[in-house]
Amino acid sequence: MNNIISGTEASKVLRGRIRMQIEKERIAPSLVVIQVGDNKASNIYIRNKKKACEEVGIKFELIKFNETISEDVVINEIKRLNEDALVNGILVQLPLPSGFDEGKIINTIKPVKDVDGLTYENVGNLVLENECLVPCTPLAVMELLKMYNVNLSRKNVCLIGRSNLVGKPLIQLLLKQDATVTICHSKSIDIKNYTKMADVVIVAAGHPNLVTKDMVKDGVVVIDVGINKENDVLCGDVAFDEVSKKASLITPVPGGVGPMTVACLLKNTLKAYEIQN
Amino acid sequence: MNNIISGTEASKVLRGRIRMQIEKERIAPSLVVIQVGDNKASNIYIRNKKKACEEVGIKFELIKFNETISEDVVINEIKRLNEDALVNGILVQLPLPSGFDEGKIINTIKPVKDVDGLTYENVGNLVLENECLVPCTPLAVMELLKMYNVNLSRKNVCLIGRSNLVGKPLIQLLLKQDATVTICHSKSIDIKNYTKMADVVIVAAGHPNLVTKDMVKDGVVVIDVGINKENDVLCGDVAFDEVSKKASLITPVPGGVGPMTVACLLKNTLKAYEIQN
Repeated sequence: MNNIISGTEASKVLRGRIRMQIEKERIAPSLVVIQVGDNKASNIYIRNKKKACEEVGIKFELIKFNETISEDVVINEIKRLNEDALVNGILVQLPLPSGFDEGKIINTIKPVKDVDGLTYENVGNLVLENECLVPCTPLAVMELLKMYNVNLSRKNVCLIGRSNLVGKPLIQLLLKQDATVTICHSKSIDIKNYTKMADVVIVAAGHPNLVTKDMVKDGVVVIDVGINKENDVLCGDVAFDEVSKKASLITPVPGGVGPMTVACLLKNTLKAYEIQN
Repeated sequence: MNNIISGTEASKVLRGRIRMQIEKERIAPSLVVIQVGDNKASNIYIRNKKKACEEVGIKFELIKFNETISEDVVINEIKRLNEDALVNGILVQLPLPSGFDEGKIINTIKPVKDVDGLTYENVGNLVLENECLVPCTPLAVMELLKMYNVNLSRKNVCLIGRSNLVGKPLIQLLLKQDATVTICHSKSIDIKNYTKMADVVIVAAGHPNLVTKDMVKDGVVVIDVGINKENDVLCGDVAFDEVSKKASLITPVPGGVGPMTVACLLKNTLKAYEIQN
């Protein structure tokens, strides 16, 4: 029985579709990433984004600032990019060094170029169900569920985690699909009562082995957004070995939501291009 | 045993506080309501708002347009009010006649004057937990819970209804108080499974007798946002007579959330004044 949701395979399919569309329509969407400082993890993430962009025909540019520059330099650069018709997507790589006002910097990005979906205009429009750019990780979760034919209408979904980046946008996306949604988080008690009722469990909490086999029902669909390191080994928030025996579908870590998130950044860049043209 | 949450009394307390602050600080906040057409229910609501404003010392103005005017007239009027430093709150009375683009008109309002909290900037900032103006009905629900000392942290809350006006803002306000939140709606099945687990049930669905005694546990707190008419009698979404026997606290309809909503409009107008000054 193969019950593994392969984010690696799904992301290939999605990237293939994007590449085909770009070739067919002979367009040249472009993405600019702004990095401040030299965070090692950020360097790796940015390298992955660059590679993924170039493979599908999206023009990629990195603007890297020393962390000693002032906030105004970043803001003025974003304003310049906002006005540059050849730039379709602008992404500020997070986290920013301390002292930088993340909210202020991100909200300088023109909402139609905000491929991370983090400006309050995009956040608000997601809630109001207006056309908008949706953050890449929640979008990746929804794409995986769609590709694996998981119908969410009238289903009980338990979401663990309430971050601005993942949990909160997912609430809106799940409600839009007519799911009944429970949001649990670090302060919740009785999480098990909710996960046991759930047809779909989505975990984005950042705690290894948070979801164990006694917490889920047979046939559950499990999406693991967590990325943790235990003894130098990458793992998610779900005790994969035991939970996978009960699940009808489950994402592994690595190879689950992660690769799909990068593909969704490409999808958003293409969408930004379409909105602007 | 008195387990009734009196919105009438609570709103008197809140309005009293607002009036005292306005008198003490010798300020003159002002609210402008824009009405298009002559909807009878709207006329009553507006009259109530006017009366409530004048009682606490908020200057009230109604700008009433014939429903034959064009959308641009409304938009230009809002733009004028945005620039008028003597106007602190702008409220477009909903619903607008058909043919008017509600989203476009509401998003013309400067967010700091949007006392209904419906612009996407306010909606987004509520999600992101930034300072913002919150829609009056959800605010009324939270104020009532606070005034009656209902601590929401780590509590199981079941919310029935997912409207932009009530349910969705409540998700954010409840999460901010560290509640575990389940959102049920018209497409949900097994609502009873969730209401039975809930310490607090909040209903905003618009269906009389939706919540019955078999659906709640002993000691539950019930907030009924519904306003329905059955045989010409006003009622909420909860079968009040039977559920009130199990509830530790419950709002009646009328006299529950309704009066508090008007008081919260005054609170928002005062807040808008403070943000602007």
